[in-house]
Amino acid sequence: MWAPGDAPGLVLGDGAQIGDGVLVGANVTIHEGTVVGPGCSLGDNAVVGRRPVLSARSTARRDDELEPLRIGAETRISAGAVLSAGTVIGRACVVGDLATVRERCAIGDGVVIGRGVCVENDTAIGAETKIQTNAYITAYCTLEDHVFIAPCVVTTNDNFMGRTERRHALIKGPTIRRGARVGGGAILCPGIEVGEEGFVGAGAVVTKDVPPRTIVVGNPARALREVPPDELLDAQ
Amino acid sequence: MWAPGDAPGLVLGDGAQIGDGVLVGANVTIHEGTVVGPGCSLGDNAVVGRRPVLSARSTARRDDELEPLRIGAETRISAGAVLSAGTVIGRACVVGDLATVRERCAIGDGVVIGRGVCVENDTAIGAETKIQTNAYITAYCTLEDHVFIAPCVVTTNDNFMGRTERRHALIKGPTIRRGARVGGGAILCPGIEVGEEGFVGAGAVVTKDVPPRTIVVGNPARALREVPPDELLDAQ
Amino acid sequence: MWAPGDAPGLVLGDGAQIGDGVLVGANVTIHEGTVVGPGCSLGDNAVVGRRPVLSARSTARRDDELEPLRIGAETRISAGAVLSAGTVIGRACVVGDLATVRERCAIGDGVVIGRGVCVENDTAIGAETKIQTNAYITAYCTLEDHVFIAPCVVTTNDNFMGRTERRHALIKGPTIRRGARVGGGAILCPGIEVGEEGFVGAGAVVTKDVPPRTIVVGNPARALREVPPDELLDAQ
Repeated sequence: MWAPGDAPGLVLGDGAQIGDGVLVGANVTIHEGTVVGPGCSLGDNAVVGRRPVLSARSTARRDDELEPLRIGAETRISAGAVLSAGTVIGRACVVGDLATVRERCAIGDGVVIGRGVCVENDTAIGAETKIQTNAYITAYCTLEDHVFIAPCVVTTNDNFMGRTERRHALIKGPTIRRGARVGGGAILCPGIEVGEEGFVGAGAVVTKDVPPRTIVVGNPARALREVPPDELLDAQ
Repeated sequence: MWAPGDAPGLVLGDGAQIGDGVLVGANVTIHEGTVVGPGCSLGDNAVVGRRPVLSARSTARRDDELEPLRIGAETRISAGAVLSAGTVIGRACVVGDLATVRERCAIGDGVVIGRGVCVENDTAIGAETKIQTNAYITAYCTLEDHVFIAPCVVTTNDNFMGRTERRHALIKGPTIRRGARVGGGAILCPGIEVGEEGFVGAGAVVTKDVPPRTIVVGNPARALREVPPDELLDAQ
Repeated sequence: MWAPGDAPGLVLGDGAQIGDGVLVGANVTIHEGTVVGPGCSLGDNAVVGRRPVLSARSTARRDDELEPLRIGAETRISAGAVLSAGTVIGRACVVGDLATVRERCAIGDGVVIGRGVCVENDTAIGAETKIQTNAYITAYCTLEDHVFIAPCVVTTNDNFMGRTERRHALIKGPTIRRGARVGGGAILCPGIEVGEEGFVGAGAVVTKDVPPRTIVVGNPARALREVPPDELLDAQ
């Protein structure tokens, strides 16, 4: 990687603020006004601070109210990742290869967003939460601190799948409480809550709330037993 | 974004036709002969009109019969998307970040192909159909108009998974009829049909045809009840 | 595509070795020391031989022991793929668009790694194995020869999902024996073995070992019947 002045193919938008010691890969695009904290790295082909695109002939107003993307110190953005304006990413995070984070997200410190993960708009992710490879975090989700999302987890936010007017008021992603863990390929239905330190088994289809410190499995998911005490956060 | 003449890193193939008012991001590659309709936009790192690659030493004939990619007016292609030659994309479509569409597909007007979606070869998608983030549309699929595919849906087309000679004649993706909806992470087995306005619940594994206007859930999927009248297309 | 000397936007690291007849797309990045065998092709935006990134201010030692990436003759790397240093890829392989392969993997000859697939670190994949679109191969997996992984398969390696100290010794991906086939969207739990020529149905959640030549389906997966003789490798 290179200092920004030496990086091949860097496209640097007006007013971007690049902190001390930032390293940049090949063919990186930093959009206008983006704030990249000190000690960050941006992998090859990363696109950061991208604004939503309107059709060239659209009469819609450009969403001028989106703040520039802000990336905290010592955060690593990997190859081919695409991060939107209007979002704040904390310190010492990792965003994996080919991951995307959309607008109006708040990502805490020390968060890991794995390779190929998509975090949709208007989502909040607490500190030290880990979202593993190819998991999908839908719009209007809340993930609290120390959550663990295994690879290829699916979250959803619309029981009506695009029909009825009343759905607009009801669209809501899952809420995943502090320390909860969701297993590989599990599917979370719209609006459900996974309680504190709850545990969803791999491949479970979660159609109702998961009580705190409870393990659920199956399709549809049902309670199996309590989370063992040595797996609770306080025991780590 | 920039007008093509000003776009940094643009690689523009011979004979490409770029309509009026097209906007282009950084490091875009437009392959030879590609037709980009007026008012389109191509996001950073987008690759459009790519032809299949043969090994440099291959004795196979290059597939010269693929027509160039054609993109209709006012369609938006997002960052890092990869679109193949031999396909036609309609007007006013949206192709999300890091999505791919392969050769010999016919994509209608107003279609949304979400972030990270893969549409494989020889697939037809009707007007106003929406395919959400990370869904997978296998080769030889048919999706009619006004279909809704939720995030991370999986479709398949080969019951033999690469074995037997007779499989070649039997490979067939699902057929999804007008107005049908398929829930998050659902899996559709080869060749099944989802009837008009059918509804597949999140996480269902669909092993046989879904009757029109019927809701199915579970693994394997079974009929649960009728789709409520206020969710049918005519009621919108 | 172009010969390396003519390729637009090529970033070629020190000491990279490019074989005869290699073809390169637009905006390709070849990292230092990478060995690209004769007759290979590298699609637009491909990133090959990338090394893990440490924070610019990190006091951790860079992993100098990773060997450069080696790509065998006649292998095709597609658009936007990201391949790490420390890995060896065989001859006549195909790596699809937007796929990633991480460090310390050994990929045999004739392997197909589909579009959007992620192969995590320390994984071995035998000759002629096919991994289809968007499948996820976790770290510390073994796939033997002639394995077939259908689209969107999920593998996992940590039953503790990030908790307890003892988990570190127990992390282990699945072992998939010669000629086994795993159906679309199936989920394999940590450490399970799919026996030789075993068959996992689409959408199955596999929580225990699959005996050789046995078909399993469901959540949790249960044995259904034997694989038909005409589908065994020797009958092809």
